[in-house]
Amino acid sequence: MILQEAMNLNLDIRFLDTQNAPCQNNSNHFTVGDIRNFDDVYNFGKELDVISIEIENINTKALKKLELEGKKVYPQPHIIELIQDKGLQKNFYKENNIPTAPYQLHEVGDSFNFEFPFIHKCRVGGYDGKGVQKVNNIDEFNQSFQGSTLIEEMIPFKKELSVIVSRNEKGEMMTYPIVEQEFNPEANLVEFLFSPSDVGEAVEEKGREIACSIIEKLDMVGILAVEFFLTESNELLVNEIAPRPHNSGHHTIEGNYTSQFEQHLRAILNLPLGNTEIIEPAVMINVLGAKGFTGRAVYKGMEEALSFKGVSPHLYGKLDTKPFRKMGHITVTNPSLDEAKKIALEVKNIISVESE
Amino acid sequence: MILQEAMNLNLDIRFLDTQNAPCQNNSNHFTVGDIRNFDDVYNFGKELDVISIEIENINTKALKKLELEGKKVYPQPHIIELIQDKGLQKNFYKENNIPTAPYQLHEVGDSFNFEFPFIHKCRVGGYDGKGVQKVNNIDEFNQSFQGSTLIEEMIPFKKELSVIVSRNEKGEMMTYPIVEQEFNPEANLVEFLFSPSDVGEAVEEKGREIACSIIEKLDMVGILAVEFFLTESNELLVNEIAPRPHNSGHHTIEGNYTSQFEQHLRAILNLPLGNTEIIEPAVMINVLGAKGFTGRAVYKGMEEALSFKGVSPHLYGKLDTKPFRKMGHITVTNPSLDEAKKIALEVKNIISVESE
Repeated sequence: MILQEAMNLNLDIRFLDTQNAPCQNNSNHFTVGDIRNFDDVYNFGKELDVISIEIENINTKALKKLELEGKKVYPQPHIIELIQDKGLQKNFYKENNIPTAPYQLHEVGDSFNFEFPFIHKCRVGGYDGKGVQKVNNIDEFNQSFQGSTLIEEMIPFKKELSVIVSRNEKGEMMTYPIVEQEFNPEANLVEFLFSPSDVGEAVEEKGREIACSIIEKLDMVGILAVEFFLTESNELLVNEIAPRPHNSGHHTIEGNYTSQFEQHLRAILNLPLGNTEIIEPAVMINVLGAKGFTGRAVYKGMEEALSFKGVSPHLYGKLDTKPFRKMGHITVTNPSLDEAKKIALEVKNIISVESE
Repeated sequence: MILQEAMNLNLDIRFLDTQNAPCQNNSNHFTVGDIRNFDDVYNFGKELDVISIEIENINTKALKKLELEGKKVYPQPHIIELIQDKGLQKNFYKENNIPTAPYQLHEVGDSFNFEFPFIHKCRVGGYDGKGVQKVNNIDEFNQSFQGSTLIEEMIPFKKELSVIVSRNEKGEMMTYPIVEQEFNPEANLVEFLFSPSDVGEAVEEKGREIACSIIEKLDMVGILAVEFFLTESNELLVNEIAPRPHNSGHHTIEGNYTSQFEQHLRAILNLPLGNTEIIEPAVMINVLGAKGFTGRAVYKGMEEALSFKGVSPHLYGKLDTKPFRKMGHITVTNPSLDEAKKIALEVKNIISVESE
């Protein structure tokens, strides 16, 4: 999606990723390598003017060396390191008066001051729900993650919200309107993300303010997704942040004047930031690999899904599917948010990613 | 722009074009060749399932052989041939009662029944205003084009309009709302294209009806731009048609639910056609090479242009500029069409394509 936007601006953009990564077919400036490997990242980056990331799990030592040698690396490597470690991330919130759930860093053998149930998280390496567990008692705790972890109070929340903020070298900042995730209470799974949220102006303002405060205190250049819990008492608590284009901003491609991908490019190239206003209500659903299918991906139901109004599929071109792998997303725009939600639910039931 | 849409649908899309064509950098399925050469087109096409074009100036003999061998070629080669020849195009209108300016086919030495001034056109090979001339007297006529030409009555018109229509294999058709070109009366040049037009419902209906009638009578699959003159008496006359994504549909990327490029793909892949409704008023300006500059292109003023709201640049990545070469386009969207026009005019004055 970054490449699609880069084409509009005629940028010479190059990619480092593993063999068969989606954009390999769509760029002849593709380098096969491991982003966790120092040499791969350093050798790739030293030919470039500006270096950015789409995933935090990168070799930051290589990025730091590139930065020292005068390359622009956005987000800055020390910020990526902070965010790679959920413990440091929490400490940062605490030191900067960013509201977040009470927590404690934990090493094997340490005592702890939290009552069960609580949330237990790996400090490093968690992704897409992995490395996070609710533990109900001491046995579950002992059988859960080892090493450096984080214990967090379980906050009953009524909504999960997200604000995306961007900042360029000049320090200009822009936030996107706050968005909301809708849960399916039966399945206890995110059903879809929608924009605009219905949390009201006060919460929206507060969310944007916190997002700006985080990116400013980090002195970060780029785009940052700030995920919140909205508590029963309408308090916003920061759950996690991600210093890159984020799943909770995919709807901006169709729903907002400037997509998060274009905004990211504008920020790291120190261009004026684009208008983040909503053009039209939007609902985003993830296209996940169906249970029971592993192997070469086959997309079922696309033709029927395309017969609905305002349905914009974005398939990522991943070669292989496996259960719950994120294979793409679909955005539904409509002048009526309720109508968009209805169509999104229908489309969700029609689409299925299976294997050959 | 086709590639950007193809990525959303995870299509395996391949390109044939000359060395250094824009998409060479953005596809590793790029074949260097000459679309006018039989072997280049045939050898490229025989590996594919569906073959389409972005310019009419292609070797149709090769396309016809591919079609005979069972490939899907959309638009169909005999339609491309008809459209390559402005004389056959005019005959087609006449035979099918499509309103168009009175004309006469002409060979060197033929007499003619038109009073000066009239329009003189090459039947084959004209492009972007080339091969079209207003002739005021017999001397100008004799010094103008030789060979097979077309003489056309000069119709005083008040507007130039365009309707884009698409049609899939099932015969489903969808038209986009009619758009209008605004002229700068001083320079006698197209200033910009805007959507929606203000011609009113009756003219709009008639334009859509004529566009549908043309694509249906051609039995064409794909996307077709129909360019009209609107006469002083509110009569629509077909000027020219183009069986491919067209300059007068570029605004649909931001301004309409389904872009003309996605619609083209939907049509040739026999998918349901997308919603063509307007999301928001849009103004499109072409980014042309500045006078006096030839060579490696350099874009001036982009940073300032990007500081305006709703400005979406699409630079085509052409390596070299020359005066008036189409190097890209910029779409401005805004809830107010008047505001979009104002911004577009400012942006037009800011942007300049020069050479190194």
